Amino acid sequence: MTRQTMGSGHFDQAFREQFWELLRWRRDVRNFKPEPLAPDLLAEILSSTRFAPSVGLSESWRYVLVSRPEIRRQVRENFESANARALAGYSGEKAALYARLKLAGLDSAPVHLAAFADRATDQGSRLGCQTMPETLDYSVVAAITTLWLTARAHGVGMGWVSILDPDRISAILAVPPEWHLVAYLCIGYPEGESPVPELERAGWEKRSAGIALVER
Amino acid sequence: MTRQTMGSGHFDQAFREQFWELLRWRRDVRNFKPEPLAPDLLAEILSSTRFAPSVGLSESWRYVLVSRPEIRRQVRENFESANARALAGYSGEKAALYARLKLAGLDSAPVHLAAFADRATDQGSRLGCQTMPETLDYSVVAAITTLWLTARAHGVGMGWVSILDPDRISAILAVPPEWHLVAYLCIGYPEGESPVPELERAGWEKRSAGIALVER
Repeated sequence: MTRQTMGSGHFDQAFREQFWELLRWRRDVRNFKPEPLAPDLLAEILSSTRFAPSVGLSESWRYVLVSRPEIRRQVRENFESANARALAGYSGEKAALYARLKLAGLDSAPVHLAAFADRATDQGSRLGCQTMPETLDYSVVAAITTLWLTARAHGVGMGWVSILDPDRISAILAVPPEWHLVAYLCIGYPEGESPVPELERAGWEKRSAGIALVER
Repeated sequence: MTRQTMGSGHFDQAFREQFWELLRWRRDVRNFKPEPLAPDLLAEILSSTRFAPSVGLSESWRYVLVSRPEIRRQVRENFESANARALAGYSGEKAALYARLKLAGLDSAPVHLAAFADRATDQGSRLGCQTMPETLDYSVVAAITTLWLTARAHGVGMGWVSILDPDRISAILAVPPEWHLVAYLCIGYPEGESPVPELERAGWEKRSAGIALVER
């Protein structure tokens, strides 16, 4: 196989087609096989986030690997409580459907990873984040999106759990007060794979057919 | 070339190496060639964001293509004003360096694209965004990160301008009040390419050597 792109920053049509395949097969995974990741694989995929964009080169991402059973238990309790409150906000068919959805892989994922934004970081000297300080949080989202794709390229699935009380999770994880929770992630080998989102398969919501552009 | 991955969702080492190259060569571009994008290329790369993750499958992203010279002039004025205020916050060497940085490609980019989050969307029925409503904004960041990579794979550069007053930009672009500005993007063919971020080349900031993991 010729490798026309290595080192040049130019990519050919064959690569682009595979990259679109990667986008199509990235999923929010909620069902994981219990086996651990291959040794060093977490470190490898996580290191790809070094290449994510960050405002002012602030690299505001901070990661917490959550392994202790007692800590995981508290996170799961927090999810269950937030999920019960969310369920109470639906009624009829929608409530019945919501109750059937599996919305987190906290029970089976071998890796739990919390991603925070360090809103007080000096790195980057606050370039680009004076009128829009939320870009420090957004940089972490860019890192997570990067991680999601890299993981998928390595056959690893990821799920983003947002049905949580972020302040309580920060307290459970005892992080510095200037760290802001952006995401709680479940990572592991997926149980079953599909190019169709689970919420679409379950009948909760459908993806749109295209992208609309407003012109000004 | 064998295409082992097409349709299967499995990716080989050769693809993974090229994907890492893509991550390494994605840049925040501030210098653009003036020529327009190839016909239909903007629509093509933008359509890749359909595959970005979104909370509850809400697809909260909304795009505004900004082409009218008078509107662009107002956006540039807003940037220049915010940038002058940012410069005033630095002193000495850092101020002199800041003043020399080119922080936006608003003058030369053939495409200006504003990305908003529709915080009032019904799509997804607010699944996953009740305790963390900011995930509707984060979904737009995931779409932008996806667009950034797809653009790069097609030889197109993108820059994220955040030195702006977001409320004023929303007013200039006359978008619905429930649309929240996430990013103002400059898109076009890059003038010069490098795997090293411009802020690093200019001596403003350096990337870290690795990723630190806190354990809990």
